[in-house]
Amino acid sequence: MKAAGVIVEYNPFHNGHYVHLQETKKQTGTHCVIAVMSGNFLQRGEPALVSKWSRTKMALEAGVDIVVELPYAYASQNAEMFANGAISILSALLCEEVCFGSEHGEIKDFQHAAQFLKQAAPTYNEKVKNAIDKGYSYPKASSIAFNEVKTTNVKLDLSKPNNILGYHYVKAIHDQHSSLTPLTITRTGAQYHDEEFTSPSIASATSIRQTLFSKSGNINDIDNYIPVSTKNHLINYYNQYNRFHSWEAYFPLLKYKLLTSSLAELESIYECEEGLEYRLMKYIKESTSFITFMGKIKTKRYTWTRLQRLCLHILTNTKKDDLLQLSTLSPYIRLLGMNTRGQQYLNEVKKKIQLPIISKAASFEDPLFMLDITAAHVYASILPEPLCSTAIKQEYSTPPIRFDEDARKFK
Amino acid sequence: MKAAGVIVEYNPFHNGHYVHLQETKKQTGTHCVIAVMSGNFLQRGEPALVSKWSRTKMALEAGVDIVVELPYAYASQNAEMFANGAISILSALLCEEVCFGSEHGEIKDFQHAAQFLKQAAPTYNEKVKNAIDKGYSYPKASSIAFNEVKTTNVKLDLSKPNNILGYHYVKAIHDQHSSLTPLTITRTGAQYHDEEFTSPSIASATSIRQTLFSKSGNINDIDNYIPVSTKNHLINYYNQYNRFHSWEAYFPLLKYKLLTSSLAELESIYECEEGLEYRLMKYIKESTSFITFMGKIKTKRYTWTRLQRLCLHILTNTKKDDLLQLSTLSPYIRLLGMNTRGQQYLNEVKKKIQLPIISKAASFEDPLFMLDITAAHVYASILPEPLCSTAIKQEYSTPPIRFDEDARKFK
Repeated sequence: MKAAGVIVEYNPFHNGHYVHLQETKKQTGTHCVIAVMSGNFLQRGEPALVSKWSRTKMALEAGVDIVVELPYAYASQNAEMFANGAISILSALLCEEVCFGSEHGEIKDFQHAAQFLKQAAPTYNEKVKNAIDKGYSYPKASSIAFNEVKTTNVKLDLSKPNNILGYHYVKAIHDQHSSLTPLTITRTGAQYHDEEFTSPSIASATSIRQTLFSKSGNINDIDNYIPVSTKNHLINYYNQYNRFHSWEAYFPLLKYKLLTSSLAELESIYECEEGLEYRLMKYIKESTSFITFMGKIKTKRYTWTRLQRLCLHILTNTKKDDLLQLSTLSPYIRLLGMNTRGQQYLNEVKKKIQLPIISKAASFEDPLFMLDITAAHVYASILPEPLCSTAIKQEYSTPPIRFDEDARKFK
Repeated sequence: MKAAGVIVEYNPFHNGHYVHLQETKKQTGTHCVIAVMSGNFLQRGEPALVSKWSRTKMALEAGVDIVVELPYAYASQNAEMFANGAISILSALLCEEVCFGSEHGEIKDFQHAAQFLKQAAPTYNEKVKNAIDKGYSYPKASSIAFNEVKTTNVKLDLSKPNNILGYHYVKAIHDQHSSLTPLTITRTGAQYHDEEFTSPSIASATSIRQTLFSKSGNINDIDNYIPVSTKNHLINYYNQYNRFHSWEAYFPLLKYKLLTSSLAELESIYECEEGLEYRLMKYIKESTSFITFMGKIKTKRYTWTRLQRLCLHILTNTKKDDLLQLSTLSPYIRLLGMNTRGQQYLNEVKKKIQLPIISKAASFEDPLFMLDITAAHVYASILPEPLCSTAIKQEYSTPPIRFDEDARKFK
C-alpha cells in the first residue's frame, strides 16, 4: 500500500479540506492519506477551536486514514521550521507524495523558485537583512527581497500565505534530501485570510471561526461550509466543555504569567528578542483583553503572528534553551488516530519506520515531547474542574483514536 | 505625642480586634496606635478575604491611627521572620510599646521564656533537630524540644499559636536591641483556630470567614462579631468585586503555574525543600480543588500552613534567590492609611525615622518591594476585567488612605 501526506491544522475541518483530501487521493492514486496535524496550538500562535482529539475525529470521519501530531516545537513556528517538521514526519512515515493547497497551483514554479533562491541565496539574504534593518518584519522583508532578486521567469508570488508555506515544503524536501514528491492543488472558493463567506460551499477556517465566535453566531450558520461530521464534533465538544477555545480565554493566564515574571525570565522565553520583554511589561498592566494588548504591542517590525507566537511561548513557558538544539527533523511521531486502512498501512511499514511512534504519552520521555505535554496542560487550563483534570488525564492515557470506516463508527 | 504598635492581619477586623485596640490605648496611655498589617496575603499562606485597602479602611474607622504594610517578605513567613519584620517596623516608627494578644496573658513569662531559651539554645536546638529527624514538623519539633528543656519555673505554654507569636515578638525585641516595651493582653472569648462561634460578641476571624464562605453563609450572620464599619466595607468590597478572596479561586492559577514549570524551576521557589517539587507535580494533575490538593501533599513532616505558604510562593513566583539576603530588619515602610492624629504623629517624628516611607508605589524601587507589587498583581489576577486592571492600577497610584476622625469620613 502506498501513502500520500497532507499538512493540516483542520481548525475546524471544512469542505475546502474535503476537496483537498479528495484531490490528493485522485492525483496520487493512493489509498492511504496521512495528515500531519498541528496539536492544540497553531502556527499563527493561537489555540485551536477544539482539542486535537476532536479534530482528529473530524479528519478520520472525513476520510483521512492516519492522523499524527506535528510537535509543538514545529507547529508554533515560522513557515520554515513548520515545514521542516511536517516534511520530516511525512518522510519518516514513508509517504511517496505530499500534496498541498496553494494560491499558485503549479508545482514546477515552486520547484523552480526553490532552486532559484538556493543559487541567489547570498544576494537574497543580504537584501532580507537590509529590509529588516529598515524596520520591516521578516515576512515582509523576505517578500521585498524576493521581488528584488527574482528574474522574470520566476513566476511564484511569495506574498501569498499558502504559496509561502508551499515554497517552504518544497525547500524542506530539497534540504532534507527527502524522496517525497511535492504536488499542489489550487485553493478555490476562499482565501486563507478571508473573514467573510464568498463561496456557496467553501469558506476559510478563519471565517468559520469568526462566525462561531461572533455574538450572534450560531453553529447552523456554517452548515454549508462543513461536513456534518465536523458539525457533530463541534457540538459534542461544546456540550462537553461549554466553550470553543480562543486567545481571549487564555488572556487572564497570560496576564498572570507576565505579571509574575521578571524581565530576565521573559527574556529567556523563545522568540523574545530585542528587548520585547520591556514592551510586553509596559502594556500588560493596563490591558483588559488580548486584542487590546496585541494592539498595543504591535509594531511595524513584528507581525501580529510573530507576537502572537511569542505570547503563546510565554503562556507555555517555552524557553530559548528548550529549542536551542532543535533539529529540522522531528525526533518522534505521535499517533493521534487511524482507520482500519491506516492501521494496515502502519503494520506493513512499521519495521521500516526509523522514528519512535508514540501511542501513549505516559510511556514516552523526550525533552521535546515534554513541550507537547505542557501545551496540552495549558490548553486544558481554562477549563473548569473537573473537566481540566479530565482533559489532562486524557492527554496521558488516551490511546490513538480508532475509526472503523465500514461501520462508520469509532471503536 | 507617643505611639504604641500592634501587629495585625485584620482578616477581617472584628470585635476582638476592637477590644485589643482599646486595651492597647488603655494600658499604654497612648493616643496614637500604629498597626503593622499583613498585605494581601497572610502568614498562614492564604489570600486575605478583601484587599489591604479595604482592611485599612476597617482599621481606621475602628480607631487605628496609622496603618502600615508588613512586606510580603515578612508577612508570608514562619513566626520568627514574621515577628522580626513587624517589630523592626514598629521600632523604626519610634513606637514605645507593642501590645499583643496571647493565650497566656502575662508578659513577664514571655520575657522569661525568651531569656531562658537564649541560654538553653544549644541543647534546645539539638532537640529540635532530633525531633525533625524523627519526621516531626518544625513547629511540633520546637514544642517538643521546649517541653523537654524547660524547667518548672518557665510557665509559658509554647504550643498555643498566639503564645508562639508573642514569644517571637519578645525575642525579636531582644535580638534587635529594640527599645520597644512588650505588653500582652489575654485573648478572651475566642481562640485563634476556633471555627464556631463560642461567645456572644467575640469570634475568631477564622469562624467569621468560614461563615462568609459557607454555602448558606449570609453577611448578617456575623453582625454580632464585627463593627458596623467592617460590615460596610465587606459589603462594599463584595459589591465592587463580586467576591471575597479564598485559595480556591486561585487554584486554577496555581495549577497552571505548576503544570508549566520544570522541576528545576519549582526547586528554585522559596521554601521548596527536600524534593517537595516531585510531590507537588505528582498530585497536581489529578487535583480538582485546592483543598483536595493540600490533602494529597500533606505529610507529618510539613504542616498545612508550611505547605500553604509554599503554594503561595509558587503562585507569586517568589524565589529562594529573592530572599537570600533577607535582613531581620525591614528596609522600608509602606504607609497604607492614617487619620488626622496619625498624620500629626508622622509629621512630628518623620525627621527621626530612618527608613524610607513609601506613600506611592510608583515612585519607589527596591527588590523586596517588588515582591509586594507582584503579590498585589497576583491578588488581582482572579478578578474579571476591567476590575483586574483597576486593582493593579490602584496598587501603583493610590496614595495612603486618609480618614478624618472627627467628621467620620474618608477624604
